[in-house]
Amino acid sequence: MPPDDAEILAANQSFYDAFTRADLETIEELWASLTPVACIHPGWDALHGRDDVLESFRAILGGGSGPRVTCVDPAATRFGDAAFVVCHEAIDDTRLVATNVFVREDGRWKLVHHQAGPMSSRRPATRARKVVSRGMMN
Amino acid sequence: MPPDDAEILAANQSFYDAFTRADLETIEELWASLTPVACIHPGWDALHGRDDVLESFRAILGGGSGPRVTCVDPAATRFGDAAFVVCHEAIDDTRLVATNVFVREDGRWKLVHHQAGPMSSRRPATRARKVVSRGMMN
Repeated sequence: MPPDDAEILAANQSFYDAFTRADLETIEELWASLTPVACIHPGWDALHGRDDVLESFRAILGGGSGPRVTCVDPAATRFGDAAFVVCHEAIDDTRLVATNVFVREDGRWKLVHHQAGPMSSRRPATRARKVVSRGMMN
Repeated sequence: MPPDDAEILAANQSFYDAFTRADLETIEELWASLTPVACIHPGWDALHGRDDVLESFRAILGGGSGPRVTCVDPAATRFGDAAFVVCHEAIDDTRLVATNVFVREDGRWKLVHHQAGPMSSRRPATRARKVVSRGMMN
């Protein structure tokens, strides 16, 4: 795995770890501060701007503990100082599919956008095969 | 509007126009060919790679006409040679919320990732205000 991909996936994992810990300080650090950010929580309309995005995490995690979200099968694609990660989010028996977009700011990969949404059990046949082969290869 | 933002939004609009026309040739041109791509259709698992992504559009649009998808309220964020657009997709009475990620290849903005998912009518109050103010400003 290229070193950049490892750094991107580490930043991605930090996001889910911080979410599960309800660690708002780390979540604030993980989101970009030099680039405008946006976020689409499952079923929500888009939030634009660092203030609204961070406010949403404070609202979701304000009780002191977040739902346990496990990031499954993340795949990173880097292009220059940008990258996106596609992964599943496992919450109890529910699987969501998510996109996390990153930008490199001052040498560190920062979240600039997040979208998560539901995934039905119906999968294109080609993708079902791909999931199996990816699982075997990783 | 900065010239780059106009170019990004034009590429974004071309995607929806081509989808509605079932114009597979233009859709193929719009997707990046030098950067690995991915796509998450509403409710589907993620598709990875140009072959699977383009095959999915051929399957969806193969009948010769696609559903009429209108892109509403697109907002572009550029960072270097990358950008993302957040917008709504109006299909009859249904509203989806979507992310389109772009990369600049050979001077042209190309799609590198797409995710669309459902949006409930429940909106965070702060966002409802933001939508109104954005509508007045644009």
